[in-house]
Amino acid sequence: MEKIRIGICGYGNLGRGVESEIAKNPDMELAAVFTRRDVSKVAHAGAGVSSMRNLSRGELSEGAGGDACLVTQTTDATAAAAAPVVSIGEIASWKDKIDVLILCGGSKSDLPTQGPLYAKDFNTVDSFDTHAKIPEHFEAVDAAAKAAGHISIISAGWDPGLFSLMRLYMGAVAPEGATYTFWGPGVSQGHSEAIRGIEGVAGAIQYTIPNEGALERIRGGETPELTTGEKHTRLCYVAAKDGADKAKIETEIKTMPNYFADYDTTVNFVTLEELSKNHSKMKHGGHVLRTGKTGEGNNQSIEFTLKLDSNPEFTSSVLIACARAAYRLSQKGESGAKTIFDIPPAMLSQITPEKLRKELL
Amino acid sequence: MEKIRIGICGYGNLGRGVESEIAKNPDMELAAVFTRRDVSKVAHAGAGVSSMRNLSRGELSEGAGGDACLVTQTTDATAAAAAPVVSIGEIASWKDKIDVLILCGGSKSDLPTQGPLYAKDFNTVDSFDTHAKIPEHFEAVDAAAKAAGHISIISAGWDPGLFSLMRLYMGAVAPEGATYTFWGPGVSQGHSEAIRGIEGVAGAIQYTIPNEGALERIRGGETPELTTGEKHTRLCYVAAKDGADKAKIETEIKTMPNYFADYDTTVNFVTLEELSKNHSKMKHGGHVLRTGKTGEGNNQSIEFTLKLDSNPEFTSSVLIACARAAYRLSQKGESGAKTIFDIPPAMLSQITPEKLRKELL
Repeated sequence: MEKIRIGICGYGNLGRGVESEIAKNPDMELAAVFTRRDVSKVAHAGAGVSSMRNLSRGELSEGAGGDACLVTQTTDATAAAAAPVVSIGEIASWKDKIDVLILCGGSKSDLPTQGPLYAKDFNTVDSFDTHAKIPEHFEAVDAAAKAAGHISIISAGWDPGLFSLMRLYMGAVAPEGATYTFWGPGVSQGHSEAIRGIEGVAGAIQYTIPNEGALERIRGGETPELTTGEKHTRLCYVAAKDGADKAKIETEIKTMPNYFADYDTTVNFVTLEELSKNHSKMKHGGHVLRTGKTGEGNNQSIEFTLKLDSNPEFTSSVLIACARAAYRLSQKGESGAKTIFDIPPAMLSQITPEKLRKELL
Repeated sequence: MEKIRIGICGYGNLGRGVESEIAKNPDMELAAVFTRRDVSKVAHAGAGVSSMRNLSRGELSEGAGGDACLVTQTTDATAAAAAPVVSIGEIASWKDKIDVLILCGGSKSDLPTQGPLYAKDFNTVDSFDTHAKIPEHFEAVDAAAKAAGHISIISAGWDPGLFSLMRLYMGAVAPEGATYTFWGPGVSQGHSEAIRGIEGVAGAIQYTIPNEGALERIRGGETPELTTGEKHTRLCYVAAKDGADKAKIETEIKTMPNYFADYDTTVNFVTLEELSKNHSKMKHGGHVLRTGKTGEGNNQSIEFTLKLDSNPEFTSSVLIACARAAYRLSQKGESGAKTIFDIPPAMLSQITPEKLRKELL
């Protein structure tokens, strides 16, 4: 079997996740990793380098998830065969050696330019997650991909991604009702960064926690109107600098507009060591729920739950499945931007259509 | 907007469910209901008949779910406009007046013949749920649908259907792991009928209950090998005839091969009135779970749960969404048998692709 040749563009947490998880997909192979950094200095699992732990935060700033993590997540050794690390400047010369390029940059500054740019030479997959700007990103990537005859799957991952799918399916099969999305328990990089910006803070991590009471009401068939603040609480672990005023830090956190003021917020002070030891995993997850009404007041409750030990590794796994679909859509002669809403589910799977019908249907 | 014209073939619980739920889909209209029964005697919500409650069991034997229910579920009034009830013998003359025919017959004797037969004149959707025979059914329907240039979506509903989708998506995005399906709490018609066949039994209902201990092990990241019997318990409510030997009935149930012998089975004796009052709803549901492994032992847990007050009404809702997709696939010029694995999710939704991207992605 010819393997699908994957390229990784951007080598932060997400790019490393794709590298680590691609080995679980025997129909694929990693062709190359493209980076903006000095190639000679990039520690790379596939190239036999055993650890990234000595890299400083600054060096990890490329790629989604790489710019805001407290402690670097690494894979000391992977099953992936060695793939070359290539300077991003040379990427165009790889256009015939790569079937799908997975864009592992960030949504803020990387993907809006990289999406349309690389769609010219490659089929692409990205995890663009700025919800409000998805239509704009779709249009830009669609125009480039159509002009070049490529497939570009945008906004893949779990939200946007699997959670979006659930919102769609639930609404389609239970048209009368309300859909709710709850996030967490999980680390919010933005909120953690906001705390780290406060004077006297040496380190911090913030968990977004779903409000169990609200979840139970919805599971019971109620369809309340809830703000994000009513659906979630915020739990902060903060390491203060020596001599810092903890009471002042706590007040600053709890009264911070947009980030914390509208939430039930708990602040726990811990040591830097404790932060590093107990709060280094990039856990996340959440729920999508809907109760539809049918007939004479019958409740039809649907719930989808994710509990993720590693947000970037799971997101990477979804990107890999979408890369398979991008390749297959391209082989069928299709082109343009697509989202997970457009992908026939079977195209994501390693399993043949016959076996899917026999064993999974 | 031109509405999608739906026909219902078979007027049991499922057919009535489609009739009741179609009103929640403003892009559709019910064109006709086809029945094997004497048309003049068919009570029909759309035709202004207020209740089906006086129909005997025998009269309800047409259609999936209609042949085994203890107490008839009906809708006294629906929002659906009156649609004619037509003898099945006249169905061919409706081929230009119906966009999608929803086959609401049973999997045992109706759908294996109706599937290929009606694919000649119509786009169709069915809920064929004999898992072991799906490949065979697919082949037969595919040949007929391709020859006629129609789309036929088979095995739609929640299992097969939404649960199948979850098994596919979960495996695709977390390739290293094990997927589990648990059914219930819910009524098993087959097991209820098996109890009713025992001497001295006046009425009975059997609930299949997921084993919470097994669920918790899987949620915790374990991947045990479990038999269906280890995943479920069986809870029976039985009304005995006057003078019947209850101890003997209980022993006969608990030792019945295939049905109960391998399960932890509980038998509760109740009155016929209590059966009718408290156990008449066709509730069902269940869970699909998978814990995938990524990186260095990170658990990625995914769970999908359904809690359904009315199994036939929910199944009907899924069939309606699939009918929308069948129409759209047909409009695109596609033909042949399809399953929910082949349907781009957006095709199931009433919402436009642009709005889906903007609001649900």
